[in-house]
Amino acid sequence: MISADPVELIEQARGGSRTALARLLTFVESGGPRQLATASLAYRERAPYVVGITGPPGAGKSTLTDQLISVVLERASFDGADTFDQVSVLCVDPTSPFTGGAILGDRIRMQDHATNPHVFIRSMATRGHLGGLSLAVPDAVRVLGAANFRVVLVETVGVGQIEVEIASAADTTIVVVNPGWGDAMQANKAGLLEVADIFVINKADRAGVKETRRDLDQMLDLGGEHEWRPPILETVATDKTGVAELWNAVERHRTYLESGQLEDRRRARMSVELDKVLSATLRSRIGTLAHGDAYEAQINSLLAGTTDPYNAAEELLRDA
Amino acid sequence: MISADPVELIEQARGGSRTALARLLTFVESGGPRQLATASLAYRERAPYVVGITGPPGAGKSTLTDQLISVVLERASFDGADTFDQVSVLCVDPTSPFTGGAILGDRIRMQDHATNPHVFIRSMATRGHLGGLSLAVPDAVRVLGAANFRVVLVETVGVGQIEVEIASAADTTIVVVNPGWGDAMQANKAGLLEVADIFVINKADRAGVKETRRDLDQMLDLGGEHEWRPPILETVATDKTGVAELWNAVERHRTYLESGQLEDRRRARMSVELDKVLSATLRSRIGTLAHGDAYEAQINSLLAGTTDPYNAAEELLRDA
Repeated sequence: MISADPVELIEQARGGSRTALARLLTFVESGGPRQLATASLAYRERAPYVVGITGPPGAGKSTLTDQLISVVLERASFDGADTFDQVSVLCVDPTSPFTGGAILGDRIRMQDHATNPHVFIRSMATRGHLGGLSLAVPDAVRVLGAANFRVVLVETVGVGQIEVEIASAADTTIVVVNPGWGDAMQANKAGLLEVADIFVINKADRAGVKETRRDLDQMLDLGGEHEWRPPILETVATDKTGVAELWNAVERHRTYLESGQLEDRRRARMSVELDKVLSATLRSRIGTLAHGDAYEAQINSLLAGTTDPYNAAEELLRDA
Repeated sequence: MISADPVELIEQARGGSRTALARLLTFVESGGPRQLATASLAYRERAPYVVGITGPPGAGKSTLTDQLISVVLERASFDGADTFDQVSVLCVDPTSPFTGGAILGDRIRMQDHATNPHVFIRSMATRGHLGGLSLAVPDAVRVLGAANFRVVLVETVGVGQIEVEIASAADTTIVVVNPGWGDAMQANKAGLLEVADIFVINKADRAGVKETRRDLDQMLDLGGEHEWRPPILETVATDKTGVAELWNAVERHRTYLESGQLEDRRRARMSVELDKVLSATLRSRIGTLAHGDAYEAQINSLLAGTTDPYNAAEELLRDA
């Protein structure tokens, strides 16, 4: 029987119950029980390695993600203990609150991976989380970590500001483009360039690969010298060409980070997350403050000229 | 001698001291003494009538504002008690924190109006006000009200989001365009249309007035039926053509508002202002929270996995 208690649910999820895990993630989406975040800490032996996958719609991110799952699973069987033995995918679509499209996509994938106990695929939607998806996703990653997942792929459907922000709040961020992307992506190039640890030219069997690679190279040159220069890989996700090499690049980036940058990167990410939680908490207090009798009374006093906005705000905050 | 005490300064400003008034407004710009807002309430017999003037740079807003001052002053001498006997202008330029250009502009104007005790012209800059100009301006309007000004013209230099927001937080908002504005203003048309109570085609001695009028009329038609349809006036500010008629339109709009809408409009404006003060107060608390030892300690605990962001935020807010 599935529990309603987060602590028990985490135990059940660790025991392999996908139903318990699914319920936990529904809690997360709704900004659910606060004790969930606390409860998952107890099992946080090792934070999962998070890989963000972003790029314009239609670039083939879903297919690429599916193939990456297979590669990760193969590695686990071949290489033993030091690799990832459980892989999870979070599909994030901020534009579609109930992710009709993404859920359909998941079902198709599940045909490949549903029977594999080492794989868990989930669409993420906001169902009331106070900080939206940009806070729900790190919450979900913590739950997946507690449930023993060692790698989490976070895939976004597009390149909106929130999606890029979510995908880039990863240890390694993959930006997926297609040959000829330059024309379609003019507006977001700079943003994507900034967050990319790895570039992938997917659908590399089409014309224009050389020009796209040159384009990306030139932009990287403009960015100046960095310790890690994002490699540019080529894949044809539909027949798995280049996908193993892509995961090799992820592992190289992981090794690079673990030689010193990982701690800094996670610290910076944590600081961004904490600021968002602070801001969301305060925002929700304003939302509460800006309704109700006390607020109306202050507005009336303001219109009557018997108080000023600073005193009014101070009084509302004092009572909050 | 000029006091440093806001209450005394307000007394001195009411007594006609421009130096005291200037110092009060410098206090306002810097988000200065909180008691200032409270102090000015004591003299808030009647809120000044606020007229916002916005439009693209180069539309002739400054010249038009200068001419409006003259018209208001003439009306005061002719019409007696029920009109405005003191006029003040706030020149707002959010892009230039110390308003070098605007100050130069003021000096040129002051040659016309400096000796007139009924006129006060001031550039507004942000010098640390926690809510920026969109909160400093209503603060300044309250101070001017306390200092007996019965009409405040709020002129912005351009049509950026903040500037339109500031100019539209008025009782009557005038949008100034020029013949042929359509080409130059494509991006902001909708925003300007939404806030305009009165349209002015300035430089109406140039070609293209008819097309611009037709253009504005069509856009107003698209906006549907409203109780007040913004009139479209024509002026040549440099030789004062049409400026008296423009002020007539302001007075008509004022009469319209006073027949019922004014209270609602000021209530809505007050609510927007109070929400901004609440938000700015909370934001400044986050800024304080996101620095210092307590914050760093929470980040360390988060990285060590001994707390979660929600508990961390809660503890930081509790100590704030």
